[in-house]
Amino acid sequence: MLSIRQAKTSDSDSIWRIFHAVVASGDTYVFDPNISRDAALAYWLDSSTRCYLAERDGKIVGTYILKPNQPGLGSHIANAAFMVEPSARGLGLGRAMGEHCLGEARRLGFRGMQFNFVVSTNNPAVRLWKDMGFEIIGTLPGVFRHSRDGFVDAYVMFRSLVDA
Amino acid sequence: MLSIRQAKTSDSDSIWRIFHAVVASGDTYVFDPNISRDAALAYWLDSSTRCYLAERDGKIVGTYILKPNQPGLGSHIANAAFMVEPSARGLGLGRAMGEHCLGEARRLGFRGMQFNFVVSTNNPAVRLWKDMGFEIIGTLPGVFRHSRDGFVDAYVMFRSLVDA
Repeated sequence: MLSIRQAKTSDSDSIWRIFHAVVASGDTYVFDPNISRDAALAYWLDSSTRCYLAERDGKIVGTYILKPNQPGLGSHIANAAFMVEPSARGLGLGRAMGEHCLGEARRLGFRGMQFNFVVSTNNPAVRLWKDMGFEIIGTLPGVFRHSRDGFVDAYVMFRSLVDA
Repeated sequence: MLSIRQAKTSDSDSIWRIFHAVVASGDTYVFDPNISRDAALAYWLDSSTRCYLAERDGKIVGTYILKPNQPGLGSHIANAAFMVEPSARGLGLGRAMGEHCLGEARRLGFRGMQFNFVVSTNNPAVRLWKDMGFEIIGTLPGVFRHSRDGFVDAYVMFRSLVDA
């Protein structure tokens, strides 16, 4: 059984466990693989950010954040980021959180969702977002210093949340 | 005579004067046109940001910031933002600051420069950056709520700072 809910302060340990495991490999997120717990939680639980957790059989196995991608005159477009515990990959958690996130973004009145930095070699993520209606809007050349592959591209991806 | 130098804390009044005049019209930057002085200076003078000023005949008429566009594994790409006092437009200040900024970015070892949000209707800016070697990497649909034109596109622009 999978359930997704908003995070509470008491979930910090679980969030840090997942965040740390995901960024340690240096192949999907820009965060310093040695980022401190405090810096990680300050980012993931920032006051302008909504944080959600995915629970599977009582264990927290994923987390995502949802926030305006820009302040003020750009705040009608959402941004989101997703992390799945490495041992829980391939079980559809990314898709389940993605669908939940799109629903929340619509509910909150966002007109679109933008990902600023999808690492081009992160095939499962690129495939998932394309499958969920996101388009690659642009390719940023060599902007990610991949821990194994060196400088690789990242994509800006976008999908509308208003009916055409 | 135009000179460009790093900002000092004592320059806050001049920076706020320019920032306020530029964002008030709501046609080029995402900042809330009614942003407070404190919030504006907190952004423009953030600790991760270098701030520069352009002085013309002893008067501060422009300012720009230079910083990493991403943390950690994306910190080799620079981001920058430029503001010219409305009464000093059309005198080449944007270009002068842009050239100074590219020089500083190279000196600091950045491998490229990225603008995340160039409002598509801001023709002088789009023309200037193209002229200075930036390419439009992608078009973000309707992401800017223009004070007069409603939802308009913004561009992601990029230029490399390493020799091919």
